[in-house]
Amino acid sequence: MGILDSVKTPSELKKLKINDLKQLSEEIRGEVLSTIEKNGGHLSSNLGIVETVVALYSVFDFPKDKIIFDVGHQCYTHKILSGRLDKFNTIRKDGGLSGFPDREESEYDAFGTGHAGTSIAAGIGYCIARDKKGEDYTVINVVGDGALTNGLNLEAISVSGEKPNKFIVILNDNGMSISKNRNGFYRFITKRTTSKGYIGSKKLIKKVFGRSFVTRWLGNLKNFLARLIGKDDYFDNHGFKYVGVIDGNDIGELVKILTRVKEASNDRAILLHVRTTKGKGYKQAEAQADLYHGVGEKLKSESGDFSISLGQVINEQIEKDPSIVAITAAMKDGTGLSLVEKEHPKNFIDVGIAEEYAVVSAAGMAAGGLKPIVAIYSTFMQRSYDQIIHDVCLQNLPVVFCLDRAGLVGKDGKTHQGVFDLSYLLHVPNLTVFAPTTAEELKNTVRYALTLNSPVAIRYPKEGGEERQFVPVEQSRWETIKEGRDVTVIAVGPRMLKIATEYASGRDEVGVISARTVKPLCDTTLDKIKNTLVVTLEENSVIGGFGSLVAQRLRELTPNAKVINMGVPDKFIGHGSVIRQLEECGLTTRHLAEKISSAK
Amino acid sequence: MGILDSVKTPSELKKLKINDLKQLSEEIRGEVLSTIEKNGGHLSSNLGIVETVVALYSVFDFPKDKIIFDVGHQCYTHKILSGRLDKFNTIRKDGGLSGFPDREESEYDAFGTGHAGTSIAAGIGYCIARDKKGEDYTVINVVGDGALTNGLNLEAISVSGEKPNKFIVILNDNGMSISKNRNGFYRFITKRTTSKGYIGSKKLIKKVFGRSFVTRWLGNLKNFLARLIGKDDYFDNHGFKYVGVIDGNDIGELVKILTRVKEASNDRAILLHVRTTKGKGYKQAEAQADLYHGVGEKLKSESGDFSISLGQVINEQIEKDPSIVAITAAMKDGTGLSLVEKEHPKNFIDVGIAEEYAVVSAAGMAAGGLKPIVAIYSTFMQRSYDQIIHDVCLQNLPVVFCLDRAGLVGKDGKTHQGVFDLSYLLHVPNLTVFAPTTAEELKNTVRYALTLNSPVAIRYPKEGGEERQFVPVEQSRWETIKEGRDVTVIAVGPRMLKIATEYASGRDEVGVISARTVKPLCDTTLDKIKNTLVVTLEENSVIGGFGSLVAQRLRELTPNAKVINMGVPDKFIGHGSVIRQLEECGLTTRHLAEKISSAK
Repeated sequence: MGILDSVKTPSELKKLKINDLKQLSEEIRGEVLSTIEKNGGHLSSNLGIVETVVALYSVFDFPKDKIIFDVGHQCYTHKILSGRLDKFNTIRKDGGLSGFPDREESEYDAFGTGHAGTSIAAGIGYCIARDKKGEDYTVINVVGDGALTNGLNLEAISVSGEKPNKFIVILNDNGMSISKNRNGFYRFITKRTTSKGYIGSKKLIKKVFGRSFVTRWLGNLKNFLARLIGKDDYFDNHGFKYVGVIDGNDIGELVKILTRVKEASNDRAILLHVRTTKGKGYKQAEAQADLYHGVGEKLKSESGDFSISLGQVINEQIEKDPSIVAITAAMKDGTGLSLVEKEHPKNFIDVGIAEEYAVVSAAGMAAGGLKPIVAIYSTFMQRSYDQIIHDVCLQNLPVVFCLDRAGLVGKDGKTHQGVFDLSYLLHVPNLTVFAPTTAEELKNTVRYALTLNSPVAIRYPKEGGEERQFVPVEQSRWETIKEGRDVTVIAVGPRMLKIATEYASGRDEVGVISARTVKPLCDTTLDKIKNTLVVTLEENSVIGGFGSLVAQRLRELTPNAKVINMGVPDKFIGHGSVIRQLEECGLTTRHLAEKISSAK
Repeated sequence: MGILDSVKTPSELKKLKINDLKQLSEEIRGEVLSTIEKNGGHLSSNLGIVETVVALYSVFDFPKDKIIFDVGHQCYTHKILSGRLDKFNTIRKDGGLSGFPDREESEYDAFGTGHAGTSIAAGIGYCIARDKKGEDYTVINVVGDGALTNGLNLEAISVSGEKPNKFIVILNDNGMSISKNRNGFYRFITKRTTSKGYIGSKKLIKKVFGRSFVTRWLGNLKNFLARLIGKDDYFDNHGFKYVGVIDGNDIGELVKILTRVKEASNDRAILLHVRTTKGKGYKQAEAQADLYHGVGEKLKSESGDFSISLGQVINEQIEKDPSIVAITAAMKDGTGLSLVEKEHPKNFIDVGIAEEYAVVSAAGMAAGGLKPIVAIYSTFMQRSYDQIIHDVCLQNLPVVFCLDRAGLVGKDGKTHQGVFDLSYLLHVPNLTVFAPTTAEELKNTVRYALTLNSPVAIRYPKEGGEERQFVPVEQSRWETIKEGRDVTVIAVGPRMLKIATEYASGRDEVGVISARTVKPLCDTTLDKIKNTLVVTLEENSVIGGFGSLVAQRLRELTPNAKVINMGVPDKFIGHGSVIRQLEECGLTTRHLAEKISSAK
């Protein structure tokens, strides 16, 4: 039994000396490592930040003080220290802890996160509420270097030249965002904080708190020189006092600095720049932190055939047409675009966590005569909804969007479900929407999409379905898998098609159709089946999705249309196994059978 | 006949001397002023930027070179100089020129804009395309100070530390964005470029181009000092050479500087900081540039009763509950929130053009115990789609969204139509959606929304409908205006309700319902009318909107449901009168009559 087991509450942690905190950190690291090996999760970021979070718990009073993790996947130490150690082995499992902060799960989770860039805005909002209500607590943001430069965070930094007191942003700088960071803002900050002439971190900290004559003098000199060449400090003008760079794996240093920062934050907001080693303590992860950013169970690298296929087909197409450019937003491995980076680095762009920029720059490229392919997970593409409408589709520009992780995503849970994309894409004029069911079909769809000279979205989950005799997308928009006399099940995507096929097997009266083209609908097929009972199946919200579009069209084709829409119900679906999520959504063969028999 | 009439093409402009260009600018200013007085449009910004655009046409070769206007509403001089003078009196009218750049309208309009913050990303995209295709042209962005600090622009500046050559961003700084700018980033830039010690603009420009020993020496000194205190230039690290500040209304200076900047941009991207006087040349506009940012016909200040009512009801509610905070994103006049600013300045926040920040900071405020009301036009709220899902609704936080300018917007046209909001909101779990039809009803809805303790969206156009006997929203979700035996028209919003009522008048068999609560649906009412022919009417895309939700629910209530969905068809609707737009959309009494009689 180690120290960790004896620290049941945050207040017990506060009694620990530095050496004990060191030991505690090691134990937490072990706990995180062994759990992620079993349950999957974000390894490197959680290993790197252990000491920083332990130090925060030692200095601040949670949940009175509020901590907000940007992106949120680095919250494991926080969960362990806030009374959730006992349940930690359930993380990301059915009914277990979420892999992200969740206000429903614990009062220690001040703000739910999952998408990047939200923390500074949320933190400022909290401070405004606190001050307005006359309450007294400190709001602490923990932001990785990849997330700091997301447009939403930059907006939050920029919006006002004043920032609230008792507001501390910790820049957790592990020198690498999800993909290699060439970001200008980050470079700007890093360069100036590490340049030779810069006043060393410890001296700077003394200066900030006015400890000695020498540092005061240095400060004055610095201000004099700054005035002389007309430069004011970037963060000063954004209402932050900048403090850094601190070794984020040195717990003694951290506790000392955080204590001072806490005090100083009474008078002004502070940005504390902390450098950590991503994947610290796990050799393999440390060396290959990019690959192990998120890991499936037992640290397997489950790339999924859809993403590999995407990389392959883009490479194949670039060889024929060098005007094709593949763009992603810090998801090159997950989307398969790392294959493009390897084969055709000049046709590959990773913009970092900047989904809006990815889409608008693609629109610019298309206007300039290129053929951009933008590969972003379905849930993160939500960020680019306005840009898809306003910049790409309104101008009818030939951008191909590839939405990976569409549908239910399993363990990442409700912040990451790709169950809205059909609802946010189908009403956008000029956009063609595909949903391939196998890897071959995805490849074929991409080839076809590149010939269309108009905007295209292709949505698909991580794993493709079993290959079957291939029917080219361009010849027959929908694929009739099986004809049926009385009932037609129209399925979108591989998992729904599998359910439909299973149900129809041995039932002569039931037909199955794969709606590879979600928009436009395939009128030829609809006309054939309009007098059967039509059941639509989609891994997308049942509201505003494929099913409602089919129902609308069928009503135009026949006044007696009978349609049942099956899809994700109108609620947020929590983390766990995809099987449980499908069950919760009522998207199983059994549910399909029930719906059909009750309609007959 | 002045100079303007003789300048038929950009190449003729190039022959003009500085004095002629001055004269030309004055003539353009007169043209812009007289046209906006007749047609409405953005006055101040277009008057301020005349000389800058004239100078750009004098130095660069359009359309070979590309010019991208951020937000786009300041493009009038550009339209006049690019062969559209003859049609300029048709601007914003049915079949006339658009008030925004439009690729379909002219090859001079390199990239369509309307929403803020897109230009730098689009410009970089263009440069990438140009370099990849081995073409040779310069890409010029014109960005106002309000738009520069939108998160998307900040993202574009930040994404890479390198910027393409032959890429020039002109910061058009009129010292005031749409609402007063306290922005930190902008303050940072302005402060450092105007501080006493700063090397004066002309000297700096010499330095950039290395004209003299003195300036080289000054430059070296500056670099030495910069190294000494560890500061590098902000824009340098973002890949731009900063040049400024230039008087943007001095045509001689502008031509001289732009000529040098053009040459220098061969080697690196340049950010040129130009200061202009918004509304220059129009006394009233110059003094009250905020009020006259956008003007209706004949410079009337058409506030519209919905927005005034919103301001009034928020003020009324704040007096009862000081935890209510009204937030907007540079739309305080248009949304009526300037009334709140006036009465309760401490309960009012204008975040500038930062819609994402507005929503997430509101989520933070709600988490901290406040009751935020976020008022943003329907079209701009598209920017916050992900934040509405991920930050507000997923956490079920009590934020009230007020979407003004929902439905067809008339003269602003396709970039500004508020015809997608129901489609992007109805599938979001936990969200209640209202569509009041009169000013009194809006007030009542806001009062009710504040009691719900969960997320609410209220959408309405600029003008409310005629007041009638008021039925409280909370008691009866839908309002039955008239009962009918055979047909029920369910309308969303005032204009659709008017059409329905007109049609039903004198037809005993036709009932009319106002669907003030768009979600959840009113099952009590639906159950009563389920056996009639149901026609839904909405000023929103017919895909994924109210109608498809009604149809889905009716099918569950009865297998024989007969539903017709009428809404905005699946295309972008151009600018002009709302009457023409309704006609184009098939949303008139005549269309309604046709649909119903053909269904019978």
